[in-house]
Formats: sequence, structure tokens, C-alpha cells
Amino acid sequence: MKRNVMVGQSGGPTAAINASLAGIYITAKECGAKTVYGMLNGIQGLLEGRYIDLSEHVKDDLDAELLKRTPASFLGSCRYKLPAAEGNEEVYEKVFATLKELDIEVFIYIGGNDSMDTINKLSKYGQSVGSEIRFIGCPKTVDNDLALTDHTPGYGSAAKYIAISMKELIRDSFTIDFKQGMCTIVEIMGRDAGWLTGAAALSKDEDCDGPDLIYLPEVPFDIESFREKVKVLLAKKVSVVVAVSEGIHTADGTYVCELGNSVDFVDAFGHKQLSGTASYLAGYIANEFGCKTRAIEFSTLQRAGSHIASLTDTNEGYAAGRAAILAADEGKTGLMVVFERLSKHPYVCGTGLRDVDKIANDERVVPREWINEDGDYVTDEFLSYAKPLIRGELVPIMVNGLPKHLNVPDGLRERK
Amino acid sequence: MKRNVMVGQSGGPTAAINASLAGIYITAKECGAKTVYGMLNGIQGLLEGRYIDLSEHVKDDLDAELLKRTPASFLGSCRYKLPAAEGNEEVYEKVFATLKELDIEVFIYIGGNDSMDTINKLSKYGQSVGSEIRFIGCPKTVDNDLALTDHTPGYGSAAKYIAISMKELIRDSFTIDFKQGMCTIVEIMGRDAGWLTGAAALSKDEDCDGPDLIYLPEVPFDIESFREKVKVLLAKKVSVVVAVSEGIHTADGTYVCELGNSVDFVDAFGHKQLSGTASYLAGYIANEFGCKTRAIEFSTLQRAGSHIASLTDTNEGYAAGRAAILAADEGKTGLMVVFERLSKHPYVCGTGLRDVDKIANDERVVPREWINEDGDYVTDEFLSYAKPLIRGELVPIMVNGLPKHLNVPDGLRERK
Repeated sequence: MKRNVMVGQSGGPTAAINASLAGIYITAKECGAKTVYGMLNGIQGLLEGRYIDLSEHVKDDLDAELLKRTPASFLGSCRYKLPAAEGNEEVYEKVFATLKELDIEVFIYIGGNDSMDTINKLSKYGQSVGSEIRFIGCPKTVDNDLALTDHTPGYGSAAKYIAISMKELIRDSFTIDFKQGMCTIVEIMGRDAGWLTGAAALSKDEDCDGPDLIYLPEVPFDIESFREKVKVLLAKKVSVVVAVSEGIHTADGTYVCELGNSVDFVDAFGHKQLSGTASYLAGYIANEFGCKTRAIEFSTLQRAGSHIASLTDTNEGYAAGRAAILAADEGKTGLMVVFERLSKHPYVCGTGLRDVDKIANDERVVPREWINEDGDYVTDEFLSYAKPLIRGELVPIMVNGLPKHLNVPDGLRERK
Repeated sequence: MKRNVMVGQSGGPTAAINASLAGIYITAKECGAKTVYGMLNGIQGLLEGRYIDLSEHVKDDLDAELLKRTPASFLGSCRYKLPAAEGNEEVYEKVFATLKELDIEVFIYIGGNDSMDTINKLSKYGQSVGSEIRFIGCPKTVDNDLALTDHTPGYGSAAKYIAISMKELIRDSFTIDFKQGMCTIVEIMGRDAGWLTGAAALSKDEDCDGPDLIYLPEVPFDIESFREKVKVLLAKKVSVVVAVSEGIHTADGTYVCELGNSVDFVDAFGHKQLSGTASYLAGYIANEFGCKTRAIEFSTLQRAGSHIASLTDTNEGYAAGRAAILAADEGKTGLMVVFERLSKHPYVCGTGLRDVDKIANDERVVPREWINEDGDYVTDEFLSYAKPLIRGELVPIMVNGLPKHLNVPDGLRERK
């Protein structure tokens, strides 16, 4: 690598996305890159000419360690969907003109499905106009729903946050023995894939019962069956805890949160913003049984909880960034870094590369056989899969009782 | 101390309440107590004859360390209000008969305002019937609203959880530059006292803006003024973050959450269960400005987050338990352990004792002069007060990526 690198972050943040950025920056420098630019707010910011020189922010090894521990996307993010090249040539011309102007040799985009679509379109357009720029995708998503990879950086840390928080809230939930019992509904991220919700089961151990029921979006939700299960549990237990994915829906496709009329936002990709599932079900159970209920949403905390990030996850995030640069340095393009589980026991994971074409806009959900027959818990296979991903802690650098983060680049917090 | 000790936990849990229990157990043993009994579910469980021998659960030093790190009340809790002795002699006779049967010399109750009322009533009744049992209160509450003490064990850890989570969610909140901006409303515990909500300001540092606005229940909430402030902020910033106490109310005393009709529960003490303040205000702002909004409730996680407990807080919780036993060992009764700040810089804190009579049913709120004139932020004095309380971490004992807790005693999880 002799010239420059452009890197961007896209979609929802994770606790490992900046570990990938650190891996990209450090490896690019090792490979001889002159300048590593970071686009602010992804491809959308690049189109507006907004980018920074990363060396002005990551000045030494301590900064690199802080970057790994900084939650959310250090460079900012976007949900901009690159239009098809045909008929929108001016957008592509603008991107490539900027990249040429900055003498870019390698373009890395850290993101999920939609971001891989961007890499796919840019690399294809690049080939069509004879560009030599290499486009590589670096995976990231708390949802763990990218195709052709064993798992995705960001998932392990969010799963760890969920498992720890579940342990703590379950313990809290039975301290008081309410007359009619108590039912807590915990809403967890995951529109179509239940990987994160399933992680609630990781809390189960000799010191914790784990949640009593777990509902993933992969199986249609039946409210009658749910009510009967809760009824039986309430008769036995002081506290019943149920983990539900934000995306659970009935057999006819109606989201449970829509039953409570809480859908109020559709994003740039046409995805419904789901929220209110826990609150709807808590109200339902309170009405049915007169018991105390609590609705808890982990909300953005589950993806931003870098103070308890998984060391396995952040190390793998770093490795994914490193692999992306090494692939580009070898002249490869149009690929995404993937993870391959080389051994289950002991857990060993390596990186590979796959055509981004085969990954973009595809979605990997929890296999039906990893969910029990009743559709209200995950199986031991799911647990064996997820357990190694939450191991170890990237210990925060604590200053005055708070985790220290790398300072925010100018231009991210102000309205444009 | 030659005979036995009875200890109970009452009210809402905190991350430091079991550190106090550890301090009580270990110090009682050092002072010569034969058996340290723990009532299950507080005085309510004791009335039902439910208690355990703590030595069967805390068998060695590792167990004691696990106990300190276990979230929620290890012994379970209750919200049982002891009736006045007059006319309810049978309740008191039952308690004292059980204590006599178990050869109890010292009775310690770990709790907040309502629990100190229990200590007050029991010690007065005890004196009236010539009992020699000593009754000592050990303070505990995340709300930090106990009178006559500088602060209360449990507050520091909850404040630390809030400050860390605020840092993380604020960082997450400006990653995407939404067209009309975004406003996040974070709802924090505190019905009448804004100590916890004020702790949101601890997140402010060179790497974090902190919340933009903070509303405590000590100052009437004016929705017009709130709207204008948010409007100005939305014009400048990609993301506006507002911390609100669950107990904020308008000048006429209407809780903001009542504006959204979310009050659905009144507890045994007649306290309204408040929830829905963030959700109401987020809806309000979305309607007014058409921006994206998020409502986040830290819910029980803020009091159960022992994985990031403050070392200062848990050490002090332990010290409070120790001081309670030492006071009882000296023959004192009808007192509560308090904290005295012996020095501000450097922070030095010692324990003292105050008449429980003067503490019970009283409430200490944030002084008006520690809130700014506009009533939408805390002052530097508040920050100087709170900062030392979140310092240091009680590092969790991690096993397979999760914090290990002491196993739950039998009889807490099952319906009675």
C-alpha cells in the first residue's frame, strides 16, 4: 500500500465497531498507507466532503486503546442508501471524484447488510469505469444477521450486556413477593433475527434461573399460549421474567407492538421502527392476571454498553478490520471479511473473505432447530454457539470513576 | 456480643445493600455473635417465621466477596409497613416472641425511610416491654433521601451506573444526523428527590457533553419552557439529550407521567408508581417538532447494576453494616448509622449515629441552591458533592464472561 485509505462506519453502532476502526487504522499504517481518512457520517458525509485524517485523532497507542473502548461509531454513521448506479451516475461520479482527489487506494466500509450493498454497488461501478480502488466490507451488527459468516463483530458485546443485565434484573425481580406475583417483560433488539433475544438465556446458571420464556421473531407469537404459560408460572414463582424480541409478530405478520399502536417511524430503508412490545405485553398481563408488571427496554444501551464489552468480540472486531486491510493490500475488492469457527471446543475463530454480492441484502436468522418446539426458549445448541462470544472483558480505562473515551471529532455534534 | 443477631433488608434493592449485609455478618462474628440469622423478605417474612442461618450461605471469604457483588437484596425484601403498636399489640408480640425464641440480642434492619420507621417502632415497643434487644438501622437507598446523613449507601453505585450509561447513550445518540434532529428523554428514578437524576451530569467531561437539560422533582416542571429550550437546542445540535426524574410534576402538583395517563399502581405505602414520563415527553417533542425521539428508562437496572458498582459506595456500605453491629455491641439502640463528610478535598467519610426517631419518615431533597436558576441543570456544588461517591470499581468476579453472584437462598423465588 503506497497511497491513502478511506474508511467509514454505517448503520447502527456496536461496542466493537471502533475496535474494527482501530484494526483498520493500525494495519493500514503498518502496510505503508500514507493517510487514513475517516468519512464523517459514512458515505453521506463523504458526498458532502466531510472527512478527517485519523492520525490527528489517534496520535499514540493510548489513543488507539481509547478508540477500541469508545462506544458508538467514532466517525459517526448514516442510514443513506446509495441509489442504483443506472440513472444516478452523478452520485457515483461525485464519490469517485472525491476518492481520486484524496488519492485513495483502498475504501473500507464497516457496517451491516445495507452497508454491504453500498460496497457492492461501489465496487461494481468502480470496475465498470476502470477504477483501481479496492472496496472491502468489514462486518458489524449487533443483530448478528449477516449471511455467510459464523457471527458478526458487535454481537458478542451486546449479548454480554444483555446476559449481565438479565442476571441483575432477574435477581432484583424476586426481592419483593407481591400478592399476585410479578411479571417482567424485557424487550430486546432484533427486528427479524432473534440472536440478541436468545442471548438472554446466557444468564441462566446455578446463581440465576435465567428468563422463564424467550420469544424470538423467527417463530410466530401466539398470545393465547403466552398467557397460559405466564399463568402457570405466576402460580409457582414470585417473579416471572420474559424476554421478547422487538420484532415478534403474530402468525398473520402483525407486530405485537402494533397491537398497542406504537409504531411511529419508518427509516430511510423502509424498516419500521419497533418499540412498545414489552409495554404492550406488560399491560396485557396486568389486565389478565392483576399482577404487578414491569416493561423494560434495553434500548440503545445494549449496543452502546462498551464498559462491559466482550474481549472476544472486540479482539475479533479488531481482527476483522485488520483482515479487511490485508485483503485490500493484496489487491482484492468486492469482498467482505467473514468469521469461520475453526473449532468449537476449544473455540477458535479465523477470518475469511466472501463475495459481498452474496451477502448484501441477505439476512441470517436463528435456525428453527435452535429454538425449542414450543417456540419459547432457545436450545443448548444455541447456547453452545453463543457462549464463547461473550468471554473475557475489554477492561475500561477508568478515570474518576468513569470509562474514558476518545474525544469526539469536530463536525459530528453540530447541525449541518 | 454473646448471643444471636437478626438482620433483614427492606424496601427497594441497591448495589451496595449486600455489602452492608457482609459488613454486618463478618463484624457480628468478630464480636462473638453465635448465629447471624437473616430474615427472608424482611419483617414480613419474619412474621411468617421465614429466616436463614447466614453461615450456611457465607461459608468462606470468597462467599463474602460474592455476597458484596451480588445485586438486589440477598435476603429478599418487603414493603410491609409495621402498624402502630397501639391496637396492634399482637403483631409486636409475635415479632418479640420469635426474637426471644431465637435468642436474639441484636436486630439490624437495612433500609430507607420506611425501614427506619420499623426500627423506630420496634425499639420503642421493646423499651416499653423492658426488652434488652438492641435495634439499629443501617441506611440504604438509591434515592439518597435519608435525613441527617451526608449520603446513603447505594446512591453512589446507582449514580455511577447512570453516569456511565448516559456517557454511552449520548455518544450513541449523535452517530446519525437525522433530518429534523433527535431528542432523547432519559427517565431516572427519584419520586421526590432528584439526587439520581442530577447524577446524569456526572457524565459531562471533555469526552462527553453530558445531558443538555436536567429536570429534578424539586423544581416545578414547566412544559412551555421545556419546549422552548429543546427547540433552541435542536436547531444547533444533532442530538439533544434530556434527563428527567420520574417524579417531575407541574406547578399544580400533577406528575408529568399522569399527563400521559400512565399511573397504574399505588404501593403499600400509598406511593404512586411513576413511569411513562420519558415516553410522554418524547411523544410531546415528536409532535411539536417532527424530530426523531427516543424514550429511555433506566428502570431497575440503575439500582441492580452491581457489575459496575462504585468501590467507594460498596466500601461505605460495608462500613455502615460494621458500624451498626459495633453500636449494638456497645449496647446502643434506636439509632441509625449515618455518614459524615469529614473532609471535602480529599474526600474523607466517617460514620456516626443518629436517633432513628429523627430520621424515620423524613426526606432530604436536593437543596434549591444546588439546582440552577432556570431549574434545568445541577450546579458545580452538586457535582463536587456527588463526584467522590462514584470513584473506584468493585471489580466483578467474572466466570465465563458473566459476573458471579452468591446463590439464592431457598424460599425466595417460590410462591408462598
